[in-house]
Amino acid sequence: MSTYTAPYADANFVIKELVKFDQYCSDAGLEEVNSELASVIIEEAGKLAADVLAPLNSTGDQNGARLEDNKVLETKGFADAYQQYVDNGWATLTGPEEFGGQALPNVLGTAVNELWHSANMGFALCPMLSQGAVEALIAHGSDELKAQYLPQLISGEWTGTMNLTEPNAGSDLSAVASKAIPDGDSYKITGQKIFITWGDHQMTSNVVHLVLARLPDAPAGVKGISLFIVPKFKLDANGAPGELNDAVCVSLEHKLGIHGSPTCVMSFGDNGGAEGYLVGEANKGLMYMFTMMNHARQSVGLQGLSISERAYQQAVEYAKERIQGTRKDGSKMPIIEHADVRRMLLAMKSGTEAMRALAYVAASDVDKAHSDDAEETQHYKPRVDLLTPIVKGWMTEFAQELTSLNVQVHGGMGFIEETGAAQHYRDARILPIYEGTTGIQALDFIGRKMLMDKGAALESLQTEMMITVNALSAVDSPAFAKMNRELRMAVERSMQVRTWLLDKSASNPDLAGSVCFDFLMMHGFLCGGWLLAKSALAAHEQLGNGEYADDFLRTKLITAEFYIDNYLPRANRHADTVMSGLSGACAIDTEQF
Amino acid sequence: MSTYTAPYADANFVIKELVKFDQYCSDAGLEEVNSELASVIIEEAGKLAADVLAPLNSTGDQNGARLEDNKVLETKGFADAYQQYVDNGWATLTGPEEFGGQALPNVLGTAVNELWHSANMGFALCPMLSQGAVEALIAHGSDELKAQYLPQLISGEWTGTMNLTEPNAGSDLSAVASKAIPDGDSYKITGQKIFITWGDHQMTSNVVHLVLARLPDAPAGVKGISLFIVPKFKLDANGAPGELNDAVCVSLEHKLGIHGSPTCVMSFGDNGGAEGYLVGEANKGLMYMFTMMNHARQSVGLQGLSISERAYQQAVEYAKERIQGTRKDGSKMPIIEHADVRRMLLAMKSGTEAMRALAYVAASDVDKAHSDDAEETQHYKPRVDLLTPIVKGWMTEFAQELTSLNVQVHGGMGFIEETGAAQHYRDARILPIYEGTTGIQALDFIGRKMLMDKGAALESLQTEMMITVNALSAVDSPAFAKMNRELRMAVERSMQVRTWLLDKSASNPDLAGSVCFDFLMMHGFLCGGWLLAKSALAAHEQLGNGEYADDFLRTKLITAEFYIDNYLPRANRHADTVMSGLSGACAIDTEQF
Repeated sequence: MSTYTAPYADANFVIKELVKFDQYCSDAGLEEVNSELASVIIEEAGKLAADVLAPLNSTGDQNGARLEDNKVLETKGFADAYQQYVDNGWATLTGPEEFGGQALPNVLGTAVNELWHSANMGFALCPMLSQGAVEALIAHGSDELKAQYLPQLISGEWTGTMNLTEPNAGSDLSAVASKAIPDGDSYKITGQKIFITWGDHQMTSNVVHLVLARLPDAPAGVKGISLFIVPKFKLDANGAPGELNDAVCVSLEHKLGIHGSPTCVMSFGDNGGAEGYLVGEANKGLMYMFTMMNHARQSVGLQGLSISERAYQQAVEYAKERIQGTRKDGSKMPIIEHADVRRMLLAMKSGTEAMRALAYVAASDVDKAHSDDAEETQHYKPRVDLLTPIVKGWMTEFAQELTSLNVQVHGGMGFIEETGAAQHYRDARILPIYEGTTGIQALDFIGRKMLMDKGAALESLQTEMMITVNALSAVDSPAFAKMNRELRMAVERSMQVRTWLLDKSASNPDLAGSVCFDFLMMHGFLCGGWLLAKSALAAHEQLGNGEYADDFLRTKLITAEFYIDNYLPRANRHADTVMSGLSGACAIDTEQF
Repeated sequence: MSTYTAPYADANFVIKELVKFDQYCSDAGLEEVNSELASVIIEEAGKLAADVLAPLNSTGDQNGARLEDNKVLETKGFADAYQQYVDNGWATLTGPEEFGGQALPNVLGTAVNELWHSANMGFALCPMLSQGAVEALIAHGSDELKAQYLPQLISGEWTGTMNLTEPNAGSDLSAVASKAIPDGDSYKITGQKIFITWGDHQMTSNVVHLVLARLPDAPAGVKGISLFIVPKFKLDANGAPGELNDAVCVSLEHKLGIHGSPTCVMSFGDNGGAEGYLVGEANKGLMYMFTMMNHARQSVGLQGLSISERAYQQAVEYAKERIQGTRKDGSKMPIIEHADVRRMLLAMKSGTEAMRALAYVAASDVDKAHSDDAEETQHYKPRVDLLTPIVKGWMTEFAQELTSLNVQVHGGMGFIEETGAAQHYRDARILPIYEGTTGIQALDFIGRKMLMDKGAALESLQTEMMITVNALSAVDSPAFAKMNRELRMAVERSMQVRTWLLDKSASNPDLAGSVCFDFLMMHGFLCGGWLLAKSALAAHEQLGNGEYADDFLRTKLITAEFYIDNYLPRANRHADTVMSGLSGACAIDTEQF
């Protein structure tokens, strides 16, 4: 089994140099919040992640959750770990102060969440879902619902779930069939929900379900979906969990990975209807879901980073230990000395660092989009909308490749389950699926985020990228000259593709659907190149300043250069595919498959 | 669980139009062997594959082999299936006639093997390993050993294994430590071997192990390895299995996939030494292994095709059935009507067809390399050497992506084990590892197959590709004009990279190791594009001739065009990475990871 160490140096570097966290905190008037505090928080979280959660990761895989009498029994050891997580206040990090939260910036929550997911993704899904429920209630719940549920959800005393999917309503929520019948102040909810992450467990005294259902008079399709809160235990007069509600887990899925995370089939209303309470207004459930989705989707993208980082650490550890092959002097050598193994490790390292840069920058943009300054909001809101499908889509697809490289570095041992490399690979496979498949992200990116605003948000991003390109040309070194040349070409290619798409898609309604995947991946690899080039500039500037270890900064220059050589050409190849129009995908009939 | 149908139409098309099987048979003087016979054989094999083997695929996954008292108990149902395989003579297809084989061309054996691996890869590994043992004995065994073992191995009455790997000798066979002590006419073999596929089972009356071990006076390293034959049951005076030998399975690996295939830890000589017989000359074991490796490596590459084809069929079936989303007229539609789903299916279809084209052509080149005509041999021997690492390396890497697309097409259901998509994905993961990792293939390709002959074999392939390029320009259609343009650029790029590498690697010994992976993948995607373009030319020529269904031919044109749009740009992006030199991989120190 692999150990885990939080990537302190890189996390701190990204927060200071790319996010410019100190500047943000000062601009936002956050007193006592700065990069030093962030560093301390990450260090503390790193201890819990490494010492408590990481060792339970393979336990969760081998002894996943079980169902007994409609009760989900989570993996042994998870309840203790969860209690430590709650006792140390980790659940409260970003919640609003009025409900017991610490109101720290989203980017800091993101940096800390990275560690939980690296350490134990199956476990960390539980608080991740709670955060989603919290957001939904903050944004749309009545004061009464907020007062009843938010303090316990934010402290972690209770956990939250999202109940969207039904057997016939996956990506297409218009098919949601669960019903909500008014019954006095509340509603009787009936229906079956599937793929409900952490839908039940015994770690807390209550579980708070957010459920999409239809009112009797609701319009058909997505405009007739409402959001309800359905607690596992109804609250008594004191607001404490009382009588069991009519909402139970009826089975658990047998999955490829994340065995530690129970994936429940939830049945609502087998005995007359589960008591539920309307969140916000009727028929606005889908809109409310979308509010949460930016956060949830960035969180899943973050999981792509987390599991890649964990896989990378395991690969490096193995490659340093495993002796195979002979040096020129006849002595035996560890496989890390083989050039192709180094290529794989650098591919993992540079890919992971690119993802971290993007994840934190996008998370910080969320903070800025919630600024009090209208101009700032106006700039960052569309930026967040643009980056979110890239974070979710690209980072989760990328994670497939990087966790696979870990298996490959292990050779035959990688295929043996006891090694643990296979677990990361299996766990990662859910990421491009849940919270909206890559196809959904890609359609969102090309349609709602690009074509709909005539490419304005993308143009703004390209303009910012060109600032980095120009800064690269100011450094006198062959490596920077090459980064400058390659990144400039890639950004110009992105501009060209934007113009081409705006032009062509008007007359060809099928085009966007056919090329959206490549358009998304293209910009993922481009964003990674941009931010690593920015990192290289910062590293170059900091060399010798004493703020960072010189070895760390020199390594950063290598990873950036390697990324430009190894990954940036992919942006161009995806551009080629986009501009081919992929007309074959439209020309072929269903029967020809 | 998914059903399986042999891809008759495409297999026949490739055999006739790309392999030019009739021409080959006539040139080789094979009477009564022609593409019609091939078609009948593939059809018959397809029945056994679909009706008997395919339904046992998930059985093998869920109820893998078990070990009891040093006996491996294979999955229930496998023994019956194996008996049918033997009774119908499938094991004898390509074996020499003097030992009971049918002496059919290797390409036909390959087309049939594709079906077994698609239907049930875990099962099909057993006869695949026997074929390897047969080849080793034919090439290097004494007449006595051949007479004793070949008839039963070729009939399938016994099965064979390969015992190479040891705990400290994986990719690096110089570390083999198993010992062979002369003992009269035979040898006492002692040592432990790991990762032994189908090392034991109860389906046949004997299992014949081929084992690498060292003689007492052997030189160190790879030059001191000899090859021995060690039967599970020693042969009695009549040549029948008699007394149990001192060679047992002591444990089974718990693996990510191919659970139906027992992966054994074999212990030789726990009770004084297993009786073994030297194959060929002492200390030439490694060379003998290399003889077999071309075949074994192409077989593993073929598995990449097989499992991708199976995954593709499952994805299409699901995409046609799964209703999700609404048409413009308000009716519900199957997901196959979504453009991004069609993109994924076409990516699987065109990728699989490209692999089939390459697998069969390379298999046919093996036949030609064994020709009686010295000139033909001289041409095809280096061609086989060149193509083999591409077949193995590229096709197995590609299979990761295509089996992953099947999971993706299934959305959430893909992550649920009962769906079966995850099994193909898990099973596929071994392919770029066993029989030489992708790194090993890539080093072989760039070093032994390219730099060593100064690029001659690659140049000959490029020349042949250019003939196809020129033929494309003769067809007057925008699709062919585009294929012509793109393929020409890609072939020219390959020529440029060859020259560049020959030039640069002389002065930079680390270069080849750093860029070999990209160099290999580049040529895999290029070969696929070349052969699908050739297929498009043949399809265009055959349109309206009545030999093939027009719908099949039109679809072939679409898949070729899609491949050129979707995959061929990757050849160029890998070329970019090769020519970047990936200097970062050399610049970084072990401690910087």
